[in-house]
Amino acid sequence: MITELAAMLKDRFGIVFNNPDLLAEAFTQASYVNEHQDQKLKFYERVEFLGDAVLELAVSEYLYKRYKDMPQGKLTRLRAAMVCEDSFASFARECGFPQYIRLGKGEQKARAWERDSLLCDIFESFVGALYLDQGREPVLKFVHQVIFPKLDEGRFDGVFDYKTTLQEYLQRDGDVDIDYQLIEQDGPANERSYEIAVLADGKKIGQGWGHSKKEAEQSAARQAYSQLQQSNDQ
Amino acid sequence: MITELAAMLKDRFGIVFNNPDLLAEAFTQASYVNEHQDQKLKFYERVEFLGDAVLELAVSEYLYKRYKDMPQGKLTRLRAAMVCEDSFASFARECGFPQYIRLGKGEQKARAWERDSLLCDIFESFVGALYLDQGREPVLKFVHQVIFPKLDEGRFDGVFDYKTTLQEYLQRDGDVDIDYQLIEQDGPANERSYEIAVLADGKKIGQGWGHSKKEAEQSAARQAYSQLQQSNDQ
Repeated sequence: MITELAAMLKDRFGIVFNNPDLLAEAFTQASYVNEHQDQKLKFYERVEFLGDAVLELAVSEYLYKRYKDMPQGKLTRLRAAMVCEDSFASFARECGFPQYIRLGKGEQKARAWERDSLLCDIFESFVGALYLDQGREPVLKFVHQVIFPKLDEGRFDGVFDYKTTLQEYLQRDGDVDIDYQLIEQDGPANERSYEIAVLADGKKIGQGWGHSKKEAEQSAARQAYSQLQQSNDQ
Repeated sequence: MITELAAMLKDRFGIVFNNPDLLAEAFTQASYVNEHQDQKLKFYERVEFLGDAVLELAVSEYLYKRYKDMPQGKLTRLRAAMVCEDSFASFARECGFPQYIRLGKGEQKARAWERDSLLCDIFESFVGALYLDQGREPVLKFVHQVIFPKLDEGRFDGVFDYKTTLQEYLQRDGDVDIDYQLIEQDGPANERSYEIAVLADGKKIGQGWGHSKKEAEQSAARQAYSQLQQSNDQ
């Protein structure tokens, strides 16, 4: 099972552990250890303790540097949405981790590998083990593949209101006139879609699409905000 | 004020910021920024957001590596005791930080520099700024000076019971007979002190001192546990 996991990690993420025991530890639940006491195995909890803090810092540093004008309150809300059981469990699923978790017989029967709490733990323990095995850089590479693209896909957009964020950003040094304009409306009534542009003092700074006007406006604001942040970086 | 702070940091910790604005940011509250709008200052909240995660990882990694046999539950309790408002506020005081915090007039009058919540924030923001300015290593050096010695001084001993910890450690591979013996009892009744040794299978493995037998036993267990961990490292 751990051999297959190692092969998958190499294929998919280019990750090869120097110490395969550490990888095994990260994917082994206490219930499995108890059933194989002759093997003196370790279970994932200690590396999970470390991985939790490694992920917290990786996400914090990324958010801090990417959103140069975002106030602390928003940074904290966004981090909380990214660093939580729900999202870590999703990441574990997207990485194909569930099938490689070593569980005792009872936990296997109970389909423990489907539980968010376990998947979240395993995502953290994997990152903790990777950090111990190879240090900071490979962890950053991994989270850049797995976590940060989800920000751009809008997975955490529910956390904050991009229209407000954009407005605060544009008006930080004075008044700016912000306007949302419907560009196109498509499809039959039950599956209509909208294309909306956002303008700052009459100049178009972003465009978005959605199944409601509200969704399209948020999408346009997000795109504009993201563009402005990027041009700010250069 | 920031100049004096910089001199103090250099004297006491050998820390010199490449970017003094970052240091100033870490010690500036929003109330001060609001009263000096012409200066376009930044306040500490964003670097505090980062510092919080930097400290969490530094402490987690240290505990993980130092206590090689400590189960996750205890690691987590110990981390929570170290990474909290109370202890960060104490560290800020011990570093002499309070007098250098830039506050608005109202906050100065309210003696905000005495508040644990503010001191905790400033301790985190200082570490966040140091991390941004100089990276990981100088932060580790700083926490090795300021935080970790407190572990050996027993400041976080309340968190866990060393007698239990030692027992769990010694008996992890089978039964070991643990015995606490009174070596010496000193002083008048109202300020008596006790010297107690701890023995494992009849061999002395530690010794401790305290104003009660209980305190002396905990101290002996802590010393024994710490010794065992160190010889385990070699």
